Amino acid sequence: MAKQAKTPRPRAETPKGFRDYFGSEVTTRAEMLRAIAGVYHRYGFDALESSAVETVEALGKFLPDVDRPNEGVFAWQDEDEKWLALRYDLTAPLARVYAQHRNDLPTPYRRYAMGPVWRNEKPGPGRFRQFYQCDADTVGTASMAADAEICAMLADCLEEVGIERGDYVVRVNNRKVLNGVLDATGVTDPEQQAAVLRTIDKFDKVGEDGVRELLGKGRLDASGAYIDGVGLSDEQAAPVLAFLTSKGDDASATIANLCAAVGPSEMGREGVAELEEIAALLGAQGYGPDRIVIDPSVVRGLGYYTGPVFEAELTFEITDEKGRPRQFGSVAGGGRYDDLVARFTGQQVPAVGVSIGVDRLLAALHAKGRAGREAQGPVVVTVMDRARMADYQAMVGELRQAGIRAEVYLGNPKNFGNQMKYADRRGSPVAVIAGEDEFARGVVQLKDLILGAKIAENASLEEWKERPSQIEVPRGQLVEKMREILGGQA
Amino acid sequence: MAKQAKTPRPRAETPKGFRDYFGSEVTTRAEMLRAIAGVYHRYGFDALESSAVETVEALGKFLPDVDRPNEGVFAWQDEDEKWLALRYDLTAPLARVYAQHRNDLPTPYRRYAMGPVWRNEKPGPGRFRQFYQCDADTVGTASMAADAEICAMLADCLEEVGIERGDYVVRVNNRKVLNGVLDATGVTDPEQQAAVLRTIDKFDKVGEDGVRELLGKGRLDASGAYIDGVGLSDEQAAPVLAFLTSKGDDASATIANLCAAVGPSEMGREGVAELEEIAALLGAQGYGPDRIVIDPSVVRGLGYYTGPVFEAELTFEITDEKGRPRQFGSVAGGGRYDDLVARFTGQQVPAVGVSIGVDRLLAALHAKGRAGREAQGPVVVTVMDRARMADYQAMVGELRQAGIRAEVYLGNPKNFGNQMKYADRRGSPVAVIAGEDEFARGVVQLKDLILGAKIAENASLEEWKERPSQIEVPRGQLVEKMREILGGQA
Repeated sequence: MAKQAKTPRPRAETPKGFRDYFGSEVTTRAEMLRAIAGVYHRYGFDALESSAVETVEALGKFLPDVDRPNEGVFAWQDEDEKWLALRYDLTAPLARVYAQHRNDLPTPYRRYAMGPVWRNEKPGPGRFRQFYQCDADTVGTASMAADAEICAMLADCLEEVGIERGDYVVRVNNRKVLNGVLDATGVTDPEQQAAVLRTIDKFDKVGEDGVRELLGKGRLDASGAYIDGVGLSDEQAAPVLAFLTSKGDDASATIANLCAAVGPSEMGREGVAELEEIAALLGAQGYGPDRIVIDPSVVRGLGYYTGPVFEAELTFEITDEKGRPRQFGSVAGGGRYDDLVARFTGQQVPAVGVSIGVDRLLAALHAKGRAGREAQGPVVVTVMDRARMADYQAMVGELRQAGIRAEVYLGNPKNFGNQMKYADRRGSPVAVIAGEDEFARGVVQLKDLILGAKIAENASLEEWKERPSQIEVPRGQLVEKMREILGGQA
Repeated sequence: MAKQAKTPRPRAETPKGFRDYFGSEVTTRAEMLRAIAGVYHRYGFDALESSAVETVEALGKFLPDVDRPNEGVFAWQDEDEKWLALRYDLTAPLARVYAQHRNDLPTPYRRYAMGPVWRNEKPGPGRFRQFYQCDADTVGTASMAADAEICAMLADCLEEVGIERGDYVVRVNNRKVLNGVLDATGVTDPEQQAAVLRTIDKFDKVGEDGVRELLGKGRLDASGAYIDGVGLSDEQAAPVLAFLTSKGDDASATIANLCAAVGPSEMGREGVAELEEIAALLGAQGYGPDRIVIDPSVVRGLGYYTGPVFEAELTFEITDEKGRPRQFGSVAGGGRYDDLVARFTGQQVPAVGVSIGVDRLLAALHAKGRAGREAQGPVVVTVMDRARMADYQAMVGELRQAGIRAEVYLGNPKNFGNQMKYADRRGSPVAVIAGEDEFARGVVQLKDLILGAKIAENASLEEWKERPSQIEVPRGQLVEKMREILGGQA
């Protein structure tokens, strides 16, 4: 490595927008993904792991919901001039895999996939350029039973990872209904249609009155700026507003309102019939509106999907960074998309899928205190006598055999205080101490660090006397006594 | 997507050297990694997941064991001209992480990591440009107890995933002993030393006599070409040959042979003492030579590591593609390396680690028939009457609630034969059949597809009569009877 000594030292930094995950950050996510994979498996979905690298050609060079071709991905040229890129989601690779292997895959093909994806976007607080996705899709069937199944599976996944019933709702809408509503407005100019769609997307933010103004003449926004409207008449705007506010007390009321909103539009009626079918299928399995509701106010993703659209929202309140209560919001979304495979084969293949926002859901579990607890630190066997290393190793060997996480202190053992500081940093529950005296008498000292910390914090002298934080036990009872202490700590 | 219709269709292909993993290929690997992570955790190692992308500067632009700077990685330039690359292993990122976070990490820092790495190398049969690694390293201690611990952990990992004791051996050697041997040869010219090292690397292939010839005047290789030798005298070559063949009947015999081979070299004696210490530490924990042996014939990686070197080898025979028996060979390797962090900080930080070859170990488990069995296909509820979809969904809902993998057939139900073909392709154990007649009578038909396949293959008429492959059960007993059939199949 002599040649490197001459160059300046490299900086020890992750690239901008990337980060490292340590300890329980890794294991908690792995446990959550494993739980979700279990549900997907039970529903008959098969695992698929495609490579992280795809040809830019196969990826299609664009992100969903983003109008910037050629942007947003990390790409480079191969030695034979081909452009390769890191996948930006798990749906584009699925389309490629299905087109490539369709003769060997069952039809319909239910698959799940989980793993990192990469986006070459400006990073921000909490926004990273590598993050996890966790998807399930059914390719090759137009049956609404596939859509209903995915909604039910999404509800099951949330409960499986620890979101209780009542703390979430899966909302279902349908792009075809929206198309019917556009028919009903009588707007035929594509640019004006697009403007209506963009306005609908703002419903979350500006509400019914805001959308009414924006569809009409325009609106003063919060900053005082005047936003031009789409220029529809009140009559033209009416079906859109009826659509957005059509959620009734139950599914049949909502369906009736939607029927009225789409009027005679054939596409619109088809969409309403699809929602009706989904509601019926879910009802037959006992998924009532406490878990899954038809809700036309769900507008996110309506531009991307071609049929049913769904979104899972967590309904409990959390406290944001500034101490204000707010609803947790969306943790998963999906819908029907029928044209991804056609890019490759020319044939339209109906498909429907869902993507769970892994980091959002993890954050929700943390907020509810339901994420896996910090992994317990190891029992630390301290080193009082370097020449006894083999004996210390034998101790951790026995503990591990008994399934107890344990390690010998491997730093410089001269300063015992450093060993205890290390045990503290490791979150160690118990330290084992044995020097010449203990070896001579055939005993070891077990120091209960969790109890010790509690005593140091706030215990009275009486409690201290009652339960000593350090006990001496015969060497032969190391595992047994350790189990007792660890059991008592839990 | 109109703009895309004009461009030629993209090819549905993975980039050259990449592949997709389906179903049990994914889940078997995940299970194996989970089992290994459990062992690592028990030994006190903490999970670390660094980003897949690093700055080229931090990676160091070179692969271990490869003398081609700037080659071997997938790299590209960021928007601000910085070069980024996909990690080629998990050790270089560990060095960066440790240098970056050293003030917040415990010392010593035991960490494990598992995930894909990428190499921009010529792909070949079974050689892919993305593959998994699974590493554990201890950073910040020079204690041989760390090396011994990693050898013990490696043995435990192999047994945990299903390699039985006796089917593997962990071999330990030491680079310092080799340095002592070089001292003993009296060779001081760096180029000649390098030639000796390269020759030692061929010991696996050419054996003792081959190395003797190559260290001396040279050798006719198998193809008839004459390979020039290093030009050592017999006296100079003697310590090298003594080193390579010093494995004795037990550890103390080997140690004695090594002492003789290194002669008065201080470095050599230090290396022998390290091996002696490792053997003693392992012996105290009961890891005898049936699991871990001192074996100076292990030469792989000796050039890369700076102290102890170890390799896990599977000792059972498998049959290769051409039907010839051969030993399975190496599945993991590691050793001590003391200068990776110094690149960043200028300070030498001692470290030791191991990397398990995930794909090799999976292949070994398959060869031994100990890999997780093919995941069972789902129970398939067939669709005899499209209008009854809600009822079919209710059936799979009940089965899933009971933990049974189940799905409704979602393809076009017109042709019943296609539904049975689908169930076959899915590896389905049981098909559920219910048409108008069954609904009217409150029953369902359960078709045991595994028994059916057996009968079709080779059963006599008597067996067929005795145990029908299709039974009719009351609708209310669907789950109960399904459990009975699935239990009988296992």
